[in-house]
Amino acid sequence: MDNTFVKPSPTLDLTRVMSPKSVAVVGASRRMDSVGGALFKNILYSDFQGILYLVNPKADFISGVKCYPTIAAIPDPVDLAIHVIPSSAVPDALRECAAAHIPGVVVISAGFKEVGGAGIELENEIKRIAEENGIVLIGPNCLGFINTDSAVKLNASFAQTMPKQGNIAFISQSGALCTAVLDYAKGENIGFSKFISMGNKASINEIDFLKALRDDPLTDVILMYIEDISDGREFIEIARQITGEIPKPKPIIAIKSGRTSEGAKAASSHTGSLAGADNVYDAIFMQSGALRVETVDELFNYAVAFARQPLPKGNRVAIVTNAGGPGIMATDAAIRHGLSLSKLLPETEEKLKKVLPATANIHNPVDVIGDARHDRYEAAIKIVLEDPNVDGVVVILTPQAMTDIKEIGEVVANVAQGMKTAPWSAKPILASFMGIVDVSPGVRILENAGVPHYKFPEAAVRSLAQMHGYQANWLSRPRTEYKSYPVQKDLAAKVFDQVKSEKRTYLPEVDTLKVLSAYGFPVLEHRFAKTEEEAIKAAQDIKFPIVLKIVSPAIVHKLDAGGVVINLQDETELSKAYRKMIATANALVGADKVWGVEIQQMADKGIEVFLGAKRDPKFGPVIVFGLGGTFVEVIKDVSFRLAPLRELSVKDMVKESKAFKILSGYRGKPADIDRVEECLTRLSQLVTDFPEIQEIDINPLIVYSRGNGARVADGRIVIAY
Amino acid sequence: MDNTFVKPSPTLDLTRVMSPKSVAVVGASRRMDSVGGALFKNILYSDFQGILYLVNPKADFISGVKCYPTIAAIPDPVDLAIHVIPSSAVPDALRECAAAHIPGVVVISAGFKEVGGAGIELENEIKRIAEENGIVLIGPNCLGFINTDSAVKLNASFAQTMPKQGNIAFISQSGALCTAVLDYAKGENIGFSKFISMGNKASINEIDFLKALRDDPLTDVILMYIEDISDGREFIEIARQITGEIPKPKPIIAIKSGRTSEGAKAASSHTGSLAGADNVYDAIFMQSGALRVETVDELFNYAVAFARQPLPKGNRVAIVTNAGGPGIMATDAAIRHGLSLSKLLPETEEKLKKVLPATANIHNPVDVIGDARHDRYEAAIKIVLEDPNVDGVVVILTPQAMTDIKEIGEVVANVAQGMKTAPWSAKPILASFMGIVDVSPGVRILENAGVPHYKFPEAAVRSLAQMHGYQANWLSRPRTEYKSYPVQKDLAAKVFDQVKSEKRTYLPEVDTLKVLSAYGFPVLEHRFAKTEEEAIKAAQDIKFPIVLKIVSPAIVHKLDAGGVVINLQDETELSKAYRKMIATANALVGADKVWGVEIQQMADKGIEVFLGAKRDPKFGPVIVFGLGGTFVEVIKDVSFRLAPLRELSVKDMVKESKAFKILSGYRGKPADIDRVEECLTRLSQLVTDFPEIQEIDINPLIVYSRGNGARVADGRIVIAY
Repeated sequence: MDNTFVKPSPTLDLTRVMSPKSVAVVGASRRMDSVGGALFKNILYSDFQGILYLVNPKADFISGVKCYPTIAAIPDPVDLAIHVIPSSAVPDALRECAAAHIPGVVVISAGFKEVGGAGIELENEIKRIAEENGIVLIGPNCLGFINTDSAVKLNASFAQTMPKQGNIAFISQSGALCTAVLDYAKGENIGFSKFISMGNKASINEIDFLKALRDDPLTDVILMYIEDISDGREFIEIARQITGEIPKPKPIIAIKSGRTSEGAKAASSHTGSLAGADNVYDAIFMQSGALRVETVDELFNYAVAFARQPLPKGNRVAIVTNAGGPGIMATDAAIRHGLSLSKLLPETEEKLKKVLPATANIHNPVDVIGDARHDRYEAAIKIVLEDPNVDGVVVILTPQAMTDIKEIGEVVANVAQGMKTAPWSAKPILASFMGIVDVSPGVRILENAGVPHYKFPEAAVRSLAQMHGYQANWLSRPRTEYKSYPVQKDLAAKVFDQVKSEKRTYLPEVDTLKVLSAYGFPVLEHRFAKTEEEAIKAAQDIKFPIVLKIVSPAIVHKLDAGGVVINLQDETELSKAYRKMIATANALVGADKVWGVEIQQMADKGIEVFLGAKRDPKFGPVIVFGLGGTFVEVIKDVSFRLAPLRELSVKDMVKESKAFKILSGYRGKPADIDRVEECLTRLSQLVTDFPEIQEIDINPLIVYSRGNGARVADGRIVIAY
Repeated sequence: MDNTFVKPSPTLDLTRVMSPKSVAVVGASRRMDSVGGALFKNILYSDFQGILYLVNPKADFISGVKCYPTIAAIPDPVDLAIHVIPSSAVPDALRECAAAHIPGVVVISAGFKEVGGAGIELENEIKRIAEENGIVLIGPNCLGFINTDSAVKLNASFAQTMPKQGNIAFISQSGALCTAVLDYAKGENIGFSKFISMGNKASINEIDFLKALRDDPLTDVILMYIEDISDGREFIEIARQITGEIPKPKPIIAIKSGRTSEGAKAASSHTGSLAGADNVYDAIFMQSGALRVETVDELFNYAVAFARQPLPKGNRVAIVTNAGGPGIMATDAAIRHGLSLSKLLPETEEKLKKVLPATANIHNPVDVIGDARHDRYEAAIKIVLEDPNVDGVVVILTPQAMTDIKEIGEVVANVAQGMKTAPWSAKPILASFMGIVDVSPGVRILENAGVPHYKFPEAAVRSLAQMHGYQANWLSRPRTEYKSYPVQKDLAAKVFDQVKSEKRTYLPEVDTLKVLSAYGFPVLEHRFAKTEEEAIKAAQDIKFPIVLKIVSPAIVHKLDAGGVVINLQDETELSKAYRKMIATANALVGADKVWGVEIQQMADKGIEVFLGAKRDPKFGPVIVFGLGGTFVEVIKDVSFRLAPLRELSVKDMVKESKAFKILSGYRGKPADIDRVEECLTRLSQLVTDFPEIQEIDINPLIVYSRGNGARVADGRIVIAY
């Protein structure tokens, strides 16, 4: 890994724990409708490829399976123990597991951090026991996990459903959502490789599971439901690896709930973990290549597309439909989500003309007309797939009188499965057989053949667009490093030391400009002056016209305090302005807190942008970039990233902002974007070097035309120590 | 109706046609898999409450039903004839219908406008025949229609499915979409009152059907799929009536496809009708109170909510869930879609505490915990419904081990049905039993009891938000009129006459300001000058500093042609600028096309906004409003409405724009929004009075603080005649 900023946590080997040869259920119950009973039944009925031991001091056997009174009494080595006992009994049980050298424990029991008070202490205790004894602890307060691997076949959960085998893994911070997802997946015929309920994440968390799934050959797509991320930087690094750097990258699709402050409140009452500001999470997902979605529908719409079809090589989609209206809706959706409609080659349209009736539309979207049967669909799909201008195909069917739905399903399935050996290279095929009941025989065939299917074309198109986005914007992106410039770190450190020695936390503009100068930012020429004479001398040095600003650690909003006068033309104007400004400031904060004034070069007009950073208590410095000037607060056009920034992130931050269009010269000449990017990189370097920086604003950075650089006109820093 | 701008089309009485006592199928076929056969079978099997006649010269009977050789041969009066014959035979058949005094005809047959060429002529011909003979003509190129009224029971379509009875009407411009929607509705247990495929809309169109559905007591909600609207103003008037003015307003939810230019291209190749610019359609839907959606999912998600539940009185939602994670996701969705989480009363929480276990969350979202059974759900739902801070409830269920899904379904259904007689006033209840298979017994109970149900909570919350939006922003909105000011219309007319007499279509600033002055716009003081002396005189009148602008009908972009110089301080500066400007202009467009200059008062700084209008070939003038100044093109922050504007539309246009936040004084004093609204109203009046105006830009209108008005600084008009 090329990241020197993160101390990676050790990678736990979860293989023995998640693919155990022997499992002990501690607290197995005779009552099959209890959690302990459900768990026992699930393991027994899932055809587990290992040995199940039951621990229950009050029973000799349950359903014909022998019970041991204690963990210690089990005569053979146990790979995994599952605790379904009252929370207060868990610490002792965990110690028994340690004594028996059991490497992994799932604590199903609730009554820990989520109930507060003593529960928090109890959770800390089991965490400590697990870590001291090198036990992999999953939970507490979870549903358990499921491993569908045919060599394991373990349903170590109390879910009512064992999913079928598949290449999608699901990690969830909500156990109840797991039960809903399993039921949904059953209805939609979706299979899983691993299905994991993380519970309270007392010991092992999403990072550990992601590492395990990275190395799991049976998992191709990873889905997550999370309410918080334990370590943003480490998440970025591991997810970035999985989604783009390993030999066979695996897409990660995630719901991070608690997006709104109300939701976050509900989330923290739920899991007891502080939810971070939502735009920080957006940044984390963006930098890690994970796709953040809002709803469970989206999660699975995209998952089946990624899991079952090759990625498109470009954004050009061909639509084959037996109905015009749905074709238009699909076209609208394609454009809305960043795809384009393939411009079919003349020879393709010629071929279509031959196989389709005269009233058919041979242009894309290709309309095979309402009376189309499977032969016409087959011919049209094969012809458009052969066109080099087509990167993917969406097949739409409406159930009309003549439509042989089942046969069309077979035809689509055959073409999709034949893609591997077809003369054309593999292209994704997605289908929407519109409706529910009449179309179901066709849908079942598609599902079994691995053709992603959607009730309405919009979802099919949107899923294809996500596949394209992953391919084009993530997998194919240029890989860049963390760039750094030679800077005068010691000079900046001196400023901070001075501020600290004065017990201050706020650095007014003069201090901030010193720091920025040390880090190579292009600051406007300026001088500090304590007297009117010094001010005039400074103005003469810099040359009129100049800007006069008050310098006081007690004045944060200079403008509101009459502390900024621009465009002073000569000494007379300066003297007048100086006296008035000092008098106002003295009256406002007291003469002892007025250090003097700053004389600054009057900046030429340019495009004003805003650069800043704020330290998140959990994730470290978050860099912010956007349009500066009057409308900033209204337009709220900002992009976020966690520092440090790779070169590509810097470029992306600028591109995402609306400022980009202005900087690119939508009117007139392009601005010096290189210099803006350089400043962002220097800012990233600065906040990474000095963890004491809590907040930094550079506003505005005035940007000139290409080659003419940019100038910092004002800035402020807040530190903590 | 208070609208004097629209000549309403006559209202057709569709009762006899859509609720016929006798139907003739012209072109009934023995081949049951043909369209004619399917149609015949559908009428026969739908238990039609009238008499069916078959017309087929080649058969004596089909399936035991007598055939007549011609329409004329039918011995009894026929209310509705359905043509399933080759398109070329339709005109003659239509004439036969006219001779037999048949009031209504559905032409199922394709081969008209949609195939182009001779098809267009054929369509014009049948349209003429129908109109000359007063025949209500539905189609051609359609699926037919379905009326589920128990007194009618007519499936006059070749769809494969007869939907169950319900209070939702569906109108579609795509026949194939109808078949998909019917199959979807069957799967989701959704019923319809009327189901109408409009086809090519040769004669009667969405306006006629909307009028019929307005008067249909069996229809409570109207769904539409349209690719174009025949008359925007009339659509607004009739839809506005239906959605808000009749005694029992009916929501209209619509998909208008062809949103993107690619989609519009596909749409026009499909229906042969020119699709209007999409933001015009947005304006039409907004002004008519119809809800525009993108997908069929949304259409039905919202439809079942509106059709089955009372509207919420406010935006405060209570969530009752047996799982934390989905509760958070629902909370996020609620906030995202403009709802708020009810703050439950202390006594409500007290009551919840009594019936829920200690670990339950008694704050909203109320978490009844994973082991909740129906009794706990029932108690919690009833308690939150009684809270006056709750306007609606979303019930979430995840299928956990202890969850008695069916019983919980019954409990929710009973509470929902009891709402009518409950001590609390009627509040909407929506449910999400998450999953598909295991939850289905509960879901079926909810559906039968009229509780809207969604696979995931997000859709339930979003649907409730739409209900709230309809109630709060449409039904409860203040009703306003078209305001007009006394203006000097004749003066404006004179300017246009002059321009026309000079064979010009472009009105440069001087002309435009004359028109605007006549219409009472607050224009900046200005003078036209032909010579340097006149210019200096004018500047002395107005007082320095002034702005100098070139006046030439050949220069559209003055700024680019060096034709604007601001902030001229005295005569010397003016003379210098004048000479340079005239020389440049002469060189650029020739001295004969340079009329002179405009001397304009130098405007004080204010907030710059943009007002404009553009005549749409189909819908007339469309008013545009947004932020002015440098960033306009980047921010693309504009609101649209069709003229004329009601007072509320004027206010809404301003509020929708990002300019509103700036005008409201997010920093400093609020601006003179009243004056902005007045200008918008005057603009609406101007473009309504003068249909020759093709385009008008007022940019910028500089707005000052409240009470200090606004000033038009520049403008241009393009006319056609």
